[in-house]
Amino acid sequence: MKIKELGGEFELIKKIKDKTKASSKEVVVGIGDDAAVLKYDEFTYLLFTTDMLVENDHFSMRHSKPEQIGMKAVEQNVSDIAAMGGLPKHALISLALPDSIDVRFVDGLYNGIHEKCRRYNISIVGGNISHSKEIVVNIALIGFVEKKYLALRSGAKIGDLIFCSGDVGKSTAGLELLRNGLNGESTKKHLEPQCRLDLARKLVKVGISSMIDVSDGVAPEVKHICEESKVGAVIYADKIPISNDTLTDSKKLNKNGIDFALYGGEDFELVFTANKNKLNEFKKYDVKVIGDIVDKKYGIKLIKNNRKLDLKSGFDHFKRLRV
Amino acid sequence: MKIKELGGEFELIKKIKDKTKASSKEVVVGIGDDAAVLKYDEFTYLLFTTDMLVENDHFSMRHSKPEQIGMKAVEQNVSDIAAMGGLPKHALISLALPDSIDVRFVDGLYNGIHEKCRRYNISIVGGNISHSKEIVVNIALIGFVEKKYLALRSGAKIGDLIFCSGDVGKSTAGLELLRNGLNGESTKKHLEPQCRLDLARKLVKVGISSMIDVSDGVAPEVKHICEESKVGAVIYADKIPISNDTLTDSKKLNKNGIDFALYGGEDFELVFTANKNKLNEFKKYDVKVIGDIVDKKYGIKLIKNNRKLDLKSGFDHFKRLRV
Repeated sequence: MKIKELGGEFELIKKIKDKTKASSKEVVVGIGDDAAVLKYDEFTYLLFTTDMLVENDHFSMRHSKPEQIGMKAVEQNVSDIAAMGGLPKHALISLALPDSIDVRFVDGLYNGIHEKCRRYNISIVGGNISHSKEIVVNIALIGFVEKKYLALRSGAKIGDLIFCSGDVGKSTAGLELLRNGLNGESTKKHLEPQCRLDLARKLVKVGISSMIDVSDGVAPEVKHICEESKVGAVIYADKIPISNDTLTDSKKLNKNGIDFALYGGEDFELVFTANKNKLNEFKKYDVKVIGDIVDKKYGIKLIKNNRKLDLKSGFDHFKRLRV
Repeated sequence: MKIKELGGEFELIKKIKDKTKASSKEVVVGIGDDAAVLKYDEFTYLLFTTDMLVENDHFSMRHSKPEQIGMKAVEQNVSDIAAMGGLPKHALISLALPDSIDVRFVDGLYNGIHEKCRRYNISIVGGNISHSKEIVVNIALIGFVEKKYLALRSGAKIGDLIFCSGDVGKSTAGLELLRNGLNGESTKKHLEPQCRLDLARKLVKVGISSMIDVSDGVAPEVKHICEESKVGAVIYADKIPISNDTLTDSKKLNKNGIDFALYGGEDFELVFTANKNKLNEFKKYDVKVIGDIVDKKYGIKLIKNNRKLDLKSGFDHFKRLRV
């Protein structure tokens, strides 16, 4: 059986996870969250995450400047640390490059990486370079979080509200514009995504019950929280924050912005849950209530056009069209 | 200018290193050793390393079984931790896989990774999967070392002896046999390299002044130690340990085993330096004296057939033939 027949990345990760039991008492949380959580000291956990950008899967040289590829590689990894409530600290960079690539590409890529590492106060402490047919950029990132601020996928409680930060669907709207040779505000959102580290730190200080970053679309992120928290959810389609730019660009594509928001990837916004009594405190931040956590027996539902639907799975690297 | 014209991987790394200053006070050693050294607690440093295996650069599906690729990915990373004197602990796995690949390949790859992680007591705490044209396996590894046992490239002193563990040249001899459709004992050394973690731990307990693993050949490893320690070296070609199997296989290829030892990669043995007064203590281990550390002004020399030569640079991913 080919992996594309297996049901996609999530099935493959599940298969691997089932085989991989973290055995060490130093591991607080292993596979299954945005970053691993490891013991550090009395007040602090160490966070450990990695993410890879592959040419023609996550970016295309036709659309992205080298700087943008470097920036995206950092943002994508920092977003995982942000989703745990922590701050990034040390990075290792693995590059695989075709022989034919120009040195200016490497300069540009590193300029993008450096710009974002300065922005987030990350030290680049090592790396390596290999040959390849396609450009590959892998970043491994260590971060830290105060124990009291740790945010997991597994903490959502029945009755909690579900929030979404910023606006979603923008990256996929931009990607689709680029694929179709069209222009719009969303293209920059795809080429230069920005994670929500500063906001995430504020949210964990207010107090949340679970959090995840939107790397695969709101629908799968809500599903991940429900699975890890052993709860159900109701999401209201008309409450999901979608910008006017994204709606405008979706129309150019004859698509519905809500589908990009639910099933599009790489927005790097935050989906989180919190007790209802925190609602007023969250009103001052760039977040919106999009649903409720309910008992697991009610499943995971989407209310759309006054109809109650099962929330479908979303974006999947193994079903995704090559850019 | 294309990167292949730049003078290879070392030049590219130097270029990147020059641009990348680790700015944090938590960084004890950044770019330029086998692993980054980060502050941890009063008695311990945290080690952080990453290495990537790319299809057709580090392995070929024509020669390697999936299990062997997984095993090599782990050995290669553990070797970096071993060279620092430490023990590996937590790993993250990034995979990029072609759509067409069979699920059995992924099972085999993970079996190899798991076997080695069990052997070295490593917990796999996360990872991710992407699309690609070629198979890519990136491992990021956290380890720990007692401060008193930390081994750097930079500690060699004038008058120290230079040692090499086990035997070298075997992996490249094996690779060349495979490329030429020949058989020999060395092929297994290429396909299933084994790092020297247990030995490295014994060596740092005896007391050494510097250490590096042999991933690119003895010549560049000695050069790295000399550069980081600001010393020179004299290496005796006839003292470099080369097994009879490697010599036999080299003859089949009409090649000289010493060239594989000096300039071939991926043996994952250890090159280290220590004070002469430790010589007797090291005699009980699988290590040989191969040279002396001298003043920087004498350069880095190779004594071969009674001639004193400048030690040339070695193996380079950007000059390497595709397998």
